[in-house]
Amino acid sequence: MKIQVVRNVLEANDRLAGEIRKRNAKSGILLLNIMSSPGSGKTSLLEKLIPLLQEDGLRIGVIEGDITTMCDAERIAKLDIPVSQINTEPFGGDCHLGSEVIMPALDHFDPKETDLIFIENVGNLVCPAEFDTGANANIVVISTTEGEDKPLKYPLMFRTCRLAVINKVDLLPHLDFNIDELEQNIRRIQPHMDIFRVSARTGEGIAAVRDWVEKMHIKA
Amino acid sequence: MKIQVVRNVLEANDRLAGEIRKRNAKSGILLLNIMSSPGSGKTSLLEKLIPLLQEDGLRIGVIEGDITTMCDAERIAKLDIPVSQINTEPFGGDCHLGSEVIMPALDHFDPKETDLIFIENVGNLVCPAEFDTGANANIVVISTTEGEDKPLKYPLMFRTCRLAVINKVDLLPHLDFNIDELEQNIRRIQPHMDIFRVSARTGEGIAAVRDWVEKMHIKA
Repeated sequence: MKIQVVRNVLEANDRLAGEIRKRNAKSGILLLNIMSSPGSGKTSLLEKLIPLLQEDGLRIGVIEGDITTMCDAERIAKLDIPVSQINTEPFGGDCHLGSEVIMPALDHFDPKETDLIFIENVGNLVCPAEFDTGANANIVVISTTEGEDKPLKYPLMFRTCRLAVINKVDLLPHLDFNIDELEQNIRRIQPHMDIFRVSARTGEGIAAVRDWVEKMHIKA
Repeated sequence: MKIQVVRNVLEANDRLAGEIRKRNAKSGILLLNIMSSPGSGKTSLLEKLIPLLQEDGLRIGVIEGDITTMCDAERIAKLDIPVSQINTEPFGGDCHLGSEVIMPALDHFDPKETDLIFIENVGNLVCPAEFDTGANANIVVISTTEGEDKPLKYPLMFRTCRLAVINKVDLLPHLDFNIDELEQNIRRIQPHMDIFRVSARTGEGIAAVRDWVEKMHIKA
């Protein structure tokens, strides 16, 4: 009974996600879904990445997902771009964004004025991986302070992503952490993952993420 | 329909959690449920904390929750204590531990030989807070690398806990992070929270956590 309901919810979600991709393809909008644990640096990454993309003429919007608060949306709005905040608290504090909340959030952006929309998903390495948001690709952010074993322990997250951004490399000298081992573990789960090492704090490596996003935009 | 099913699941969970507390009260076992984001240092904390509790004569067991892998259980088993591993993958990769998996895990421990059982929940700051495990108290671990805003963004987690352990204080000199602001945010959500600042890497502050656990054990 419970399983049947969950299955229906997932099927409805996937159907709507397909509609989102069709609609965005018509408008020439690339939709990228960023996921991570709480505090891995999704917002900080966007704060550094978006200005680089803007320099190259891309017009950007952000959909911010949080259970509650507008903290991240306020940080992103300072970049002077349109932001749509989704709070999942009225929906029972949902631990992920589904396509049913992404679809109406898209109406917040003028398709003639938008090339690229980032979804910053709820901070959670488990549930968001189960729900197709309608994005063209998923990105996982993992920070050097989280340990080498996380891809093995949260395999679905890494299996559903095309890009892994390893953040907080500026802290490497202060950690007992083997970044090569983390990369190996990522590739054990997702052999074709693109991987970049960055510091959203210092800006190191962000240009490589920009190039990746721009290539995705050309393809889309 | 979906809401009704979820409600039934939660009610059944809470009923069973109550039975777990009754059973443990009879056996004189204290059950503590540790929750956090992935990589905040739950296992590292236990690795430092358990030997201190053993020195004081407490007989300890650990229930390890993970979607998949035995990584953490293997680390804890090195302390030469009984460990029960729960992998939620066969249950659809559940993002939390419910009382229905804790109850059978308890059979792994001899009640005559056990004073205290820790549950190391699935790494997730959202869903585990929604499910009563039958523990006598919940503990949240949050690390200095996760940002000051997490209590505001994940309020239910902090509302359901009696102790917050702020881990990785050894990294403070290398971070743009205000630990006082984190404590203030914790108290905005949960004014009566006990809070300790520790480093599971250096051992700093772990003795205070031991004292807290031992007081809880005397009360239980």
